[in-house]
Amino acid sequence: MLSKEFSFELIAQNEKARLGKINTPRGIIDTPAFMPVGTQGTVKGIFTDDILQTNTQIILGNTYHLLLRPGIKILEKYNGLHNFMNWNKPILTDSGGYQIMSLSKFNKIDSKMGAIFTSHIDGKKIILSPEKSIQVQKSINSDIIMVLDECPKLTTDKKILSKAIDVSTHWAKRSKTEFGNNKSKALFGIAQGGLFKDLRIESIQKLIEINFNGYAMGGLAVGEKQSDMFKILNESIDYFPKDKPRYLMGVGTPSDILGAVKEGVDMFDCVMPTRSGRTGLAFTWQGKVNLKNSKYQNDKMPLDEDCEIKELNKYSKGYLNHLIKSNEMMASMLISLHNIYFYQQFMREIQTNIKNRTFQSFYKKYINLFN
Amino acid sequence: MLSKEFSFELIAQNEKARLGKINTPRGIIDTPAFMPVGTQGTVKGIFTDDILQTNTQIILGNTYHLLLRPGIKILEKYNGLHNFMNWNKPILTDSGGYQIMSLSKFNKIDSKMGAIFTSHIDGKKIILSPEKSIQVQKSINSDIIMVLDECPKLTTDKKILSKAIDVSTHWAKRSKTEFGNNKSKALFGIAQGGLFKDLRIESIQKLIEINFNGYAMGGLAVGEKQSDMFKILNESIDYFPKDKPRYLMGVGTPSDILGAVKEGVDMFDCVMPTRSGRTGLAFTWQGKVNLKNSKYQNDKMPLDEDCEIKELNKYSKGYLNHLIKSNEMMASMLISLHNIYFYQQFMREIQTNIKNRTFQSFYKKYINLFN
Repeated sequence: MLSKEFSFELIAQNEKARLGKINTPRGIIDTPAFMPVGTQGTVKGIFTDDILQTNTQIILGNTYHLLLRPGIKILEKYNGLHNFMNWNKPILTDSGGYQIMSLSKFNKIDSKMGAIFTSHIDGKKIILSPEKSIQVQKSINSDIIMVLDECPKLTTDKKILSKAIDVSTHWAKRSKTEFGNNKSKALFGIAQGGLFKDLRIESIQKLIEINFNGYAMGGLAVGEKQSDMFKILNESIDYFPKDKPRYLMGVGTPSDILGAVKEGVDMFDCVMPTRSGRTGLAFTWQGKVNLKNSKYQNDKMPLDEDCEIKELNKYSKGYLNHLIKSNEMMASMLISLHNIYFYQQFMREIQTNIKNRTFQSFYKKYINLFN
Repeated sequence: MLSKEFSFELIAQNEKARLGKINTPRGIIDTPAFMPVGTQGTVKGIFTDDILQTNTQIILGNTYHLLLRPGIKILEKYNGLHNFMNWNKPILTDSGGYQIMSLSKFNKIDSKMGAIFTSHIDGKKIILSPEKSIQVQKSINSDIIMVLDECPKLTTDKKILSKAIDVSTHWAKRSKTEFGNNKSKALFGIAQGGLFKDLRIESIQKLIEINFNGYAMGGLAVGEKQSDMFKILNESIDYFPKDKPRYLMGVGTPSDILGAVKEGVDMFDCVMPTRSGRTGLAFTWQGKVNLKNSKYQNDKMPLDEDCEIKELNKYSKGYLNHLIKSNEMMASMLISLHNIYFYQQFMREIQTNIKNRTFQSFYKKYINLFN
């Protein structure tokens, strides 16, 4: 039977790598978990019943995009995104903060009002306050809600990073108040602080004082070196409470995930498997495969002989190469699905290896395969 | 058990409308039949296992496109298109003639050599003789092979049409010789003659002398009025042998199909359900639905409440409207699949009504619904 409340259980640990389980009223999420991204109410090119076949237990929706289109009025009519897009398992939504920085024009941060921006669709001016972000995520009926944060671009300017922590902490408090008391859902705080250990710890400690159901690392995977990301995780992640899930936002390649799991991260999301799928790049146990390359033209082998979902093992690399060259959307459909399948298989292998206390050798075997 | 030989059986007739069955070693085809078009080795946006769910019994491949890409060398390595694209039921291929007229540049008809054209992909000069067309279709391993014909653009110039008949008849003979003796496959002749009864009859009689496994009407659906198309079918179709399947190439809307079945046509192919799907146009028992229209924004009803394949009955018109506005390929995927499902449901209703001798009232009810 499904839990009526959100909860997290730490099941096993192999050095810092953690095996866990998140319970939600809509389903359990085994961690370390990967969340495919469904930006606009669809994981691009993949039917929801095929996503289920990949053993995906949770997907991510983007508050910024969904607020602009279809808008909260329509989402409320459907009692939220699950029903609208025909996905009945858990959904996590980001707060919209990151997209406001990266996608919209003339954005401005006003600590009191929130993020002020113009829509990238129709140029309309919108103010997203911390309260409004939570309200929108409630309209989406999201199972895991993120606080609105200020996510600065990659910088070594401590003043900018410090100010972002101040604003984000202030907004995190207001988000918590707006979220109120709802045990069936979760609210996660987001730490900032760039690549500075002292700032990360400061941000984390301020969030812990507010007390959230889970904690995210924000402001990483914004262009820094992978080794820098692993280093700051190593230096700061132990300051998060052990009994709450830890989410590294927007990450990443399979080796990014592997290295972050090694430091103790539990949750990930990234557009990489679907975006790469649309450009003909596949992830496999032999590494990355660029199916645009003509050398695959005569390759009769599938990407994964053992993958039986959607008969993916019946489609050869030669056929995929043909579809890409012919600009057929079937290429995106098949490779995106393969990539999500691969990512989830990768996560299950990570889980198994933590359980069996063999994670370190798994890590060594694959950490450089996808770079 | 599947038949080892190609054959056609006329099962019932309701006035001129015919219920039949084509037997092939790869499966039976109930007629009147609609063949979804898989131009480049994929029915755009639809997985082969989902095509099967729509009760599609045969698809069409385009010789012109497949010759240019992936090319016959690769197709031969896979023992043909079925294996390459993971579709095990029958495939019909056109001869390439129509695409040479419509897609390639600097095409020239030389009665002796064949069609001379430059590839629309890389500008390479290619000569497609009647023999070469049959050879390519054999490399595709097509179950129903079409003779190479000259398909002139819409014209009332009898000289042009007459010359096209002469060339097409000459090529049809050469195609028959090249096809040789292969009872597991079928070779269809193609009649020309525009909208002139005398020319159509002349073309048909010349083809009958050569003797084919089936006969197609070519040079229709090239821009003429629907009523003109129905008229020439009415005037000439009885000249085809009763015991062979009759195929109207490139047709059409559901009402085009309905009117042609009334005249005695057995087989159809058209890109319409998938092409319309990609532009947000759906076919339903209530007529055409343009899902781009904002009036569907708040419509929580699906296109077809009873359609259970791929849970299509769980996707509302409002959601489809959102996906189209958001340029999501999921819109094309869902609507194309719906349209193929609808077309095949429409064909089954046609079959049932011929069987029950109620075709005329079915015809009256739906003939104007899709115009």
